[in-house]
Amino acid sequence: MAPFVAQRRVEFAHTDMAQIVHFANFYRWMEEAEHEYFRSIGLSIMEKQDDGTYIGWPRVNCSCHYQAPAHHNDLIDIHVYVERIGFKSLNFYLEFWVGDKRLAYGRMKTACCICRPDGTLQSIEIPEIYRSKFVEMPLPGKG
Amino acid sequence: MAPFVAQRRVEFAHTDMAQIVHFANFYRWMEEAEHEYFRSIGLSIMEKQDDGTYIGWPRVNCSCHYQAPAHHNDLIDIHVYVERIGFKSLNFYLEFWVGDKRLAYGRMKTACCICRPDGTLQSIEIPEIYRSKFVEMPLPGKG
Amino acid sequence: MAPFVAQRRVEFAHTDMAQIVHFANFYRWMEEAEHEYFRSIGLSIMEKQDDGTYIGWPRVNCSCHYQAPAHHNDLIDIHVYVERIGFKSLNFYLEFWVGDKRLAYGRMKTACCICRPDGTLQSIEIPEIYRSKFVEMPLPGKG
Amino acid sequence: MAPFVAQRRVEFAHTDMAQIVHFANFYRWMEEAEHEYFRSIGLSIMEKQDDGTYIGWPRVNCSCHYQAPAHHNDLIDIHVYVERIGFKSLNFYLEFWVGDKRLAYGRMKTACCICRPDGTLQSIEIPEIYRSKFVEMPLPGKG
Repeated sequence: MAPFVAQRRVEFAHTDMAQIVHFANFYRWMEEAEHEYFRSIGLSIMEKQDDGTYIGWPRVNCSCHYQAPAHHNDLIDIHVYVERIGFKSLNFYLEFWVGDKRLAYGRMKTACCICRPDGTLQSIEIPEIYRSKFVEMPLPGKG
Repeated sequence: MAPFVAQRRVEFAHTDMAQIVHFANFYRWMEEAEHEYFRSIGLSIMEKQDDGTYIGWPRVNCSCHYQAPAHHNDLIDIHVYVERIGFKSLNFYLEFWVGDKRLAYGRMKTACCICRPDGTLQSIEIPEIYRSKFVEMPLPGKG
Repeated sequence: MAPFVAQRRVEFAHTDMAQIVHFANFYRWMEEAEHEYFRSIGLSIMEKQDDGTYIGWPRVNCSCHYQAPAHHNDLIDIHVYVERIGFKSLNFYLEFWVGDKRLAYGRMKTACCICRPDGTLQSIEIPEIYRSKFVEMPLPGKG
Repeated sequence: MAPFVAQRRVEFAHTDMAQIVHFANFYRWMEEAEHEYFRSIGLSIMEKQDDGTYIGWPRVNCSCHYQAPAHHNDLIDIHVYVERIGFKSLNFYLEFWVGDKRLAYGRMKTACCICRPDGTLQSIEIPEIYRSKFVEMPLPGKG
């Protein structure tokens, strides 16, 4: 099964004075790609419940390895692999490509949580309505 | 030797609709704390050379583990440990605390590079003027 | 002549703890929409010259009036009107819509400048190769 | 009466490939300075009520005029003037200085609102507990 692919344009505001994309943008792109993947299978990353809480997916950890810089106007393909579906969490593996050049790769673990209006979080088992839509995807050879 | 400590206030713009700090802000704080550490020992993270290039420190990789959410108005202490001084790179270990509660910890590897005006990078050995100022610091028991 | 229209999805990271889009994102969207307009007529907002400088378009001023909040997952249409083509500057009028509801409107004046590698700017007359591609557009009745 | 002054360091991440501070950062600094002013008089910009709503201060409009670019490592003084205290809103005038050089100035109007957990806003009269702490400040000669 192929990864889910999202695409982002490098905007002027993503660059820094080293003339390359500032590294912190990659984490926002990881999350945006994850959310696009959720939307593509009919799910929302923040789903309001009747009691006013949300079911959300805060990060447990996240990492990124940088191999080549991205530049203004680049079109970046973000490959999203569901690496592992756990009881309460998801592990993603992601790659960033411009054309046939890989710029970066990383991992992200997110936990299914009740997000309360007071800013507290409670980890829960992934509801079946979510679980039934996720599929683990084989990782590429490298990485 | 104690870690270097930088402090950041959680601003309103750092929060998201889950009422907590958006995870990507931690990476910018890591970098800001690293840069404050550089300034504290008389160094700059982007040092202009006579030929118009800069000596800079782009990230090779970066990771963060989240243990508890940060909230609006929190005062965060960022502990910066120089974990290892390599030939061409630095490894940092960092912790985020609010009072006596650790919110997150992570690692960051940065490479000493020539940053050219055209947005290309070239890895170099850490110049002696930098190396002489860095000191490796013992990590805390946990982490 | 109709305005140029760019579209942006409200990402999770654009929201704040008031559960709405943080106001500062509108300024980045204004700029991104302006840059999409430039690309649509074959121009770049940062055009490298042979001498290593760029022709760029820094902001002279920018304003935004907020009428209704934007929320997570909204699809925002950004209407870009070239209001006036001056000798050295462009005036844009912009509107933000979700469906048939206008959320915000604003103005932005940008100056054609030589951007030098040392971070200094010099205002110049708009080169003919740019000027020939811009067209002033009649504003909508309201605003 | 003198303006309230907040100070911000220009971080590396604030810069863009034109080697200057990206213009959108000024709006976040305006808000951060406003919030520091609130804290300085014992108020919070997001005050939780017993019913789970917040009293907050979303922006009605905001503008900024740019006169000179800011650069990496600059220390910026942000002068906050309460220009007018209305029934339901506050008007601020702000200036950005590096040393004795003014970089930018702008205005911001904020409305006192009930912010509900569902992301809706309701404008209200400024409660007396807030109003009694604000003082209008004479603007500087220029601007």
